[in-house]
Parts: sequence; structure tokens; C-alpha cells
Amino acid sequence: MRLRHNPNAPSFLEAHPEIVEPNPENYRTNWKSLFNNDNPLHIEVGTGKGQFITGMALANPEINYIGIELFESVMMKACEKALDAGSPANLRLLRVDGSDLEKFFAKNDVDRLYLNFSDPWPKTRHAKRRLTHEGFLKLYENVLVDNGEVHFKTDNRGLFEYSLISMTDYGMKLNLVSLDLHDDNPEGNIMTEYEEKFSAKGQPIYRVEAQFITKK
Amino acid sequence: MRLRHNPNAPSFLEAHPEIVEPNPENYRTNWKSLFNNDNPLHIEVGTGKGQFITGMALANPEINYIGIELFESVMMKACEKALDAGSPANLRLLRVDGSDLEKFFAKNDVDRLYLNFSDPWPKTRHAKRRLTHEGFLKLYENVLVDNGEVHFKTDNRGLFEYSLISMTDYGMKLNLVSLDLHDDNPEGNIMTEYEEKFSAKGQPIYRVEAQFITKK
Repeated sequence: MRLRHNPNAPSFLEAHPEIVEPNPENYRTNWKSLFNNDNPLHIEVGTGKGQFITGMALANPEINYIGIELFESVMMKACEKALDAGSPANLRLLRVDGSDLEKFFAKNDVDRLYLNFSDPWPKTRHAKRRLTHEGFLKLYENVLVDNGEVHFKTDNRGLFEYSLISMTDYGMKLNLVSLDLHDDNPEGNIMTEYEEKFSAKGQPIYRVEAQFITKK
Repeated sequence: MRLRHNPNAPSFLEAHPEIVEPNPENYRTNWKSLFNNDNPLHIEVGTGKGQFITGMALANPEINYIGIELFESVMMKACEKALDAGSPANLRLLRVDGSDLEKFFAKNDVDRLYLNFSDPWPKTRHAKRRLTHEGFLKLYENVLVDNGEVHFKTDNRGLFEYSLISMTDYGMKLNLVSLDLHDDNPEGNIMTEYEEKFSAKGQPIYRVEAQFITKK
């Protein structure tokens, strides 16, 4: 997500606490109190410009959504998108690092986790930075409910091939694999900015729904 | 593999016992005695017209190959191909049903198993006929060595998606996944007749190397 640094981003984000939660650590184990309901919580790690998470929040008012993004200038775009959508009550953004997930979420806080068009980090020496590396999978398992699912889509073939191996090596079960998402024309698919761009070029979008299997 | 029935096929196959082994049940547990060496044995289930297995036998003289095909008219093409290649000493064909694998092979007889462009059987009610259905995976495990591998390639997206799920549900480990084999340009890839046809059209060829994990 290449985007020029915007010096106004920090103050813009601070000015919108109704979208960008300023104290997420306070809600660990207790996100229901922020949303003021018992609805499931779905989070997206690496929310980018926010088209997916805002679209999902509008399409599914009975689910709470949190989008996580590290980069302020990118997060500002996502915040603007949420404002344009009328600040949905079931949507929040967190400007935090995905590696710190456990600071803000405890086991069972999250009902589903989305990864969309994550950075492929193609060099082998950067494999640990891929959001489907086992180090991240462990984090996700530690904040998801038992048997929680990760839904991942990307146009990047190498990252997808890696992720299928990484997820199944970790012991996750594959519930759905699509090697050409748009050809399958799935109901309710909310496109990300990248997805619109790449699928318009005729490139296949890959998607997997993988599930942690909790051993009792 | 659509091919007109050839009434000469049975007699042609009988006339070439140096290629088409007439009594495969006699070699169960003892295939090394047929090849007269201790080399590993790799088999292909659904050999079709035989381009892959003949090409592999010529390229890898230190490995023994057996191609299995049910249909006589198709097997006749494979037999002709083997004859044209000079009847490689490390190649045999069996005209038998893949479902009967255990009649001809015992545990540890087979070092690797190939599936290439298998019939996709796209209707859900025919899923049991797919060569990556768990029923077939069980057969393969029962004839392979411990931690034996299945190498599978296909142009059929639906079958490949199904196979990734079926194999990992079975507990197999994915050692390699390629969602565009020819773009990866792998060394030593021997193309099947289908593969030449479909990749020439620019369709991606999917490939997986999956391994049974033997629990001790």
C-alpha cells in the first residue's frame, strides 16, 4: 500500500475517536462493551484503505467489525471511507501493529479474522513477515474463539501457495479453496481496492477459508 | 480420455507381455523380482496414452515405473508409445482398475504415486470416483512406503480445489503447491498429452506434492 506520508494524518485520526478507537487496550476481553451488544466480532488485519471492512460493516449490521492498520496515512483513507459511510456503529479502526494483536485481544475475543491482499514479502528471508507465517497464525489462534476461521484472499500466487502450506502445516483445516474467486461469483463478496484493480486485469483472485482445530 | 473402442486392442496388449504385464498379481510384495533390481518403484494411476510414464522412464533409468490404465484402447496407445521408446526395461503397464490397487501392490511396494489430469467427475454425487477422494487416498496409503508422496497435476480448477481439501482433511502434508506450473518452469517436468494441449491454450496447470504422514 504505497501512499505518500500525510502530515495531517495523526491529528485527523485523533479527531475521530468514534471511528479510530484511541484506547483499544481498555477493551481487551470486553469488546462487547464498546459496541454495546453481543454480536460476533470479525477483524481484518491489514485493513489498508478500508473498502472491505466498511463494505462488510454496511452489508452485515449484525456483526461488529474492527479493521487494523499500522500506517497512519493509509488509516486516514480508511477513516474517511468510514465517515463517508456515515460512521457505522458496528465499525471501528485500530491504528496498531498486527504483531501486537494480543495486547488488544484475548482468547475468544474474535469470532473471525480476515486477511486481504496482504504484503507478499516474496524474499525467503522475509517469510516471517508474511501474515500467514506460523508466527502470525499462532497470534490469530490466541485471539480467536475455538475452531475460529481465517478468511484470506489475494492475487499473489506465491503468497497463496505459501499460505496453503503454512496453514495446513499449522494444523488448520481448509474449508473452502477458490483459485478463481470472481469466476465463482460468490454471493456477498466485498471487493477490496486491490481486488477491483487486479480482477479488472483478468488476474485470478485466490481465496481460502481455513479453520483452527481446537484439540480438547 | 475419449477414444474409439479398438477391437484389436486386447490381442495387441496380449502380444506385448514385455510391456503389459499379464500377471501383475504374481508380483505383489515382490516387484523388484520383475525389474530384477532394487530401484524405487513409482506408479501412475490413470496413465492414459502414456506420454508421461514413458517420458519419466526414459528420463530416470534408476527408477522403475508402472502405469495403470483401465481402458484397453487407451492402454494400446500407451503400449505403442513404450514400444516406440524401445521398450524401456524400467517400464511396465498394467491394464487394471485403480480401485483394485491392493490386489497388485502391498504396503511398501510403491515409493511414489502420480496422478495426472485425472477425470474431474464434477458432479457431487460422483465425488467418490475422483482419484483424490479419501477412498482412493486410503488405497494409496496402503500400497506406499511410510511417508510416501502423491504428486498430482491437473488443469481442472474444481478438481484441484477439491483435492487440496481432500488431501489435507485426510491428514496429508502439502510439500509443494504450484498454481501455475509452467510459469514456474520446473526442471524435469514431463508433460502429459493433456498438459501440452491445455498449457498451449494459456490455461494454468496446477500441481501439488502431498505426503502421507505415518504415525509411529
